[in-house]
Amino acid sequence: MSPSAPPPATDLQVDFPFDYAAHVAGARRMGRLPEEAHGARVAVIGAGGSGLAAAYELLRAGCHPIVYEAEESAHGPGGRRLGGRMYSRRLLDEDSAVVELGCLRFPETARLLRQYAQTFEVRLEAFRDNYAAPTTPLTLLDVDGQQYAAREIEDLYGLHEGFREAHTRWQQALTRIGFFQIQRDLAARDLDAVRRRWRDVLTRFDLWSFYRFLRDPEAVGLSHDQARVLGTAGVGPAVWDSFFDLSTMEILRLLLCTEGSGLLYAPDGISRLAEGFWTHRTTDPQGRTCSVEGINKGSLRPAVRLLEVEPDAAHGVVVHSEDGHSERFAAAVFTPQLRLLETGVEVRSTSARTPVLGPRLWRAVRRLHYWQSAKTALVVDHPFWTETSMDGVTLTDRLPRAVYTMDYGPARGPRGRRGVLDLSFTWAQDAMKIAPSTLEERIALFVRDLADIHPEVADDLRAHARAGEAVTISWENERNFRGLSRWSCPGDYPYQRDLFAHFMKDFTGKPAVPGEPPNALYLAGDDTSWSPGWLNHALASGLNAAWGVLRQLGARPEPGNRGPGDVWNDPRYTPLATP
Amino acid sequence: MSPSAPPPATDLQVDFPFDYAAHVAGARRMGRLPEEAHGARVAVIGAGGSGLAAAYELLRAGCHPIVYEAEESAHGPGGRRLGGRMYSRRLLDEDSAVVELGCLRFPETARLLRQYAQTFEVRLEAFRDNYAAPTTPLTLLDVDGQQYAAREIEDLYGLHEGFREAHTRWQQALTRIGFFQIQRDLAARDLDAVRRRWRDVLTRFDLWSFYRFLRDPEAVGLSHDQARVLGTAGVGPAVWDSFFDLSTMEILRLLLCTEGSGLLYAPDGISRLAEGFWTHRTTDPQGRTCSVEGINKGSLRPAVRLLEVEPDAAHGVVVHSEDGHSERFAAAVFTPQLRLLETGVEVRSTSARTPVLGPRLWRAVRRLHYWQSAKTALVVDHPFWTETSMDGVTLTDRLPRAVYTMDYGPARGPRGRRGVLDLSFTWAQDAMKIAPSTLEERIALFVRDLADIHPEVADDLRAHARAGEAVTISWENERNFRGLSRWSCPGDYPYQRDLFAHFMKDFTGKPAVPGEPPNALYLAGDDTSWSPGWLNHALASGLNAAWGVLRQLGARPEPGNRGPGDVWNDPRYTPLATP
Repeated sequence: MSPSAPPPATDLQVDFPFDYAAHVAGARRMGRLPEEAHGARVAVIGAGGSGLAAAYELLRAGCHPIVYEAEESAHGPGGRRLGGRMYSRRLLDEDSAVVELGCLRFPETARLLRQYAQTFEVRLEAFRDNYAAPTTPLTLLDVDGQQYAAREIEDLYGLHEGFREAHTRWQQALTRIGFFQIQRDLAARDLDAVRRRWRDVLTRFDLWSFYRFLRDPEAVGLSHDQARVLGTAGVGPAVWDSFFDLSTMEILRLLLCTEGSGLLYAPDGISRLAEGFWTHRTTDPQGRTCSVEGINKGSLRPAVRLLEVEPDAAHGVVVHSEDGHSERFAAAVFTPQLRLLETGVEVRSTSARTPVLGPRLWRAVRRLHYWQSAKTALVVDHPFWTETSMDGVTLTDRLPRAVYTMDYGPARGPRGRRGVLDLSFTWAQDAMKIAPSTLEERIALFVRDLADIHPEVADDLRAHARAGEAVTISWENERNFRGLSRWSCPGDYPYQRDLFAHFMKDFTGKPAVPGEPPNALYLAGDDTSWSPGWLNHALASGLNAAWGVLRQLGARPEPGNRGPGDVWNDPRYTPLATP
Repeated sequence: MSPSAPPPATDLQVDFPFDYAAHVAGARRMGRLPEEAHGARVAVIGAGGSGLAAAYELLRAGCHPIVYEAEESAHGPGGRRLGGRMYSRRLLDEDSAVVELGCLRFPETARLLRQYAQTFEVRLEAFRDNYAAPTTPLTLLDVDGQQYAAREIEDLYGLHEGFREAHTRWQQALTRIGFFQIQRDLAARDLDAVRRRWRDVLTRFDLWSFYRFLRDPEAVGLSHDQARVLGTAGVGPAVWDSFFDLSTMEILRLLLCTEGSGLLYAPDGISRLAEGFWTHRTTDPQGRTCSVEGINKGSLRPAVRLLEVEPDAAHGVVVHSEDGHSERFAAAVFTPQLRLLETGVEVRSTSARTPVLGPRLWRAVRRLHYWQSAKTALVVDHPFWTETSMDGVTLTDRLPRAVYTMDYGPARGPRGRRGVLDLSFTWAQDAMKIAPSTLEERIALFVRDLADIHPEVADDLRAHARAGEAVTISWENERNFRGLSRWSCPGDYPYQRDLFAHFMKDFTGKPAVPGEPPNALYLAGDDTSWSPGWLNHALASGLNAAWGVLRQLGARPEPGNRGPGDVWNDPRYTPLATP
């Protein structure tokens, strides 16, 4: 354990501790455009978190953001689905129950997200995560065929000797490497201290996988079996052995924003946040009421097939969509997962001599690691699991891996349903196991294992599996995504840094990424962020791209409100070079 | 480079250097059954390499192997497809061209495979692998948008400075850790020396990923960029950055059987080997002519749904197939990839007190890592690439990654075709990129990149892409496979050892895996071997399982011909315990 009181989780991203929430709080805008740039049309490719945040802030700064989206939906604007991996499904209008196929939860530290949720009046509540007493009645750990019931993680100490030692050593190692001190420094906004300590950690562990960190005597020093049990039991959100291949740095980044923080969810579905970005009526710099929806005439544009990028940013980008329509924009923000640059959307320079992306960016795009993820959820009339061993979270080394139970409160109509049982939420190899299985097969497999783990509720479970309605997704097989999110493996640091730095193009001085051409294409999306897989970081990536677009269009900061690019050269912010 | 003459690659698997080829050579059989066990019916689940090898040798030893297969094929016996990942497709009868969707090539060191190929009269020839001069006219390396043409790997030294240093250091590191000396010891059959040196390597590198091995100053000590270029250029077969997450031990095992060996392929398709196992007329111990096909009445049985395993091996296993048929067998050999044990085939003990697999085996089954793999091949009338930069192998950091060109010689009829262009052969993250893409999309993407890499043949390529016939596969989305093959990551060693040792059950003494129940179920398949992904090791795994079945049935070794289980306790063979 940490020697003194546990520090708070942080709302600042350690590699670039810019306060995005403050930057766009209240009436603050991201920059002041010169008059001639007002109304500049900017293409935003992708209506997920990063694209919508970019569109919303570009609108507030005086641009006209036009949003393209490849995902289709009968109920969405223009027959397109808003939200990307904010993907909530209410199966019947009368249901209160909402299935979250993508973003399920986020830490309380997600200030930018919470600020937008407040503006858009999206309700947030405590999520029933593992070991989150008193919110979560029970976390049942099932490993090696044995069950261990816990309310808080330390409850496992008395039940599983291997876990006690593993978790104690883990906490001690975090203390030893200065993890908790970095959290304290971030909370105190002591950015010099943060930078100094983070550099030490990066220098030491950049090439370490999480598994090595757990096993190596110079770090946690666990046995194989201890690492296995800790991996199944989880320490932060989810089962942790899914992440053994990841870079240790990626795990530390994730822990900085979650360790010591509760998790939240949106009881009306996180897609409401996407609707908020789309419909919320805000004002442009002239004080006129406007909305992203209004600028887009109520429709998302169809999938983009080709981006023709001019070498001179002043000539912008021509966007060709699948309906045969083409339009030249002042700039384009590209937010889909970067695999789509190689496979789904053609990007072409109008000049044979100038590429769209420099060689370093292409290297990064080609070599990123994305994680598979599958979820299968069952919507049921009521939370039949109440006061059983299933009332909360089940973590298991069997096929389902992580199981969540949610009660969305009174249904909205007589035939409506209120319970959601996430039968299985898996990553990486575990998601791969069931990727070719049909929905029916998945349900049968997960119910088989859960009935064995929870005999007291097995009959009810089987009955509700027959009566309920189920949905499933494997993100790696979704053609517009090809993975749930990027995560870094050892060796990815230079790629992460270049992707994050892409928005710092070379209009007046040196680009942040040497060789990067000064065109009007900006990458965004959580996979350009330092800690993908979290909506908060997707939103921030959209703000980075918006800042780049605004600078290209000649914007200057509002007084006292410097943007992410304005602080870039401040050594407390400039992302560290590869060690 | 190695200080003296390069040593030969080895035909012995270093962790268990048993000579499988010698054990079943000529008239030798795997054991002598007692008379009452003659004709014992044994179920073999899966008609791939391991299953067919097990069936063939069980037949020769006097059993009646009955083979089940889940894959369907209009042309296969009983409407089922023989071969598993020996999966050759001749698209037209008149084609000489054969597309290999699975096993494409294997090292000359694969003695067991070659011996069977000789018995079954399956033709083998030199494969046009990267840097395999004079067989391969050219290996074109395309990295960072630059092309480097080589016949042998050292040709790259003068062309790419980063590669020269990377490859030199790599060779020096192999020398330093004793890799080449282990090859020499294996060639000299000095098993004591092999064991001593391999123990040192295992103790030192068991927890190392391949990427760490390349980067760590205590091993190869490359820069990030050098590792990247070496990863793209390849050293053994394929592009090596696909394997950065793997255990260093897995890479060394692969190199032991390939480094210094040429590669072979089967010009008539490797499926011929599967047909050989099925149709070849051999003799039973009484000298009667028999074949696996004959015993199976010419039909493979349908997919297995359930295995009911008796706790007492004497009562065998009841196999339930999808056609509703059930039969009790003296024993069952289970060869599909082990993910199917969790997802596709139910295994159930007839006794609530005795599980089918012990807790250690379940751990191993649940935690293995499988690799994705995709291949897209184009069949064309003639090798239009002859004497162009595409005549051989293209290795690239772009989407196709590895491209092979093959000429199968004069077509078998006037409309037949002879050329196969493997447009793309990818692993892991690279396979994931295109997993949701259709065949047409894949072709368009790969042709786009290849036309850019090979401008001199671009027009021909586009024309043949229109005129030719293409096929593609993503093994991870094949429901009867769920991945191309298992490969080990750091931490997997205990699982590998337990899976390999499974056939050493406890009928007379202690089982090789503590807690493993002495029932009549035997696991086989390359994922139970020490070096998956190679057909030779799949075949050997089938022989291990066959040995286990024969011992259960009371067999004794033929004089002077000890089997894999007979040498198990010889300390030169017993697989090393986890370091």
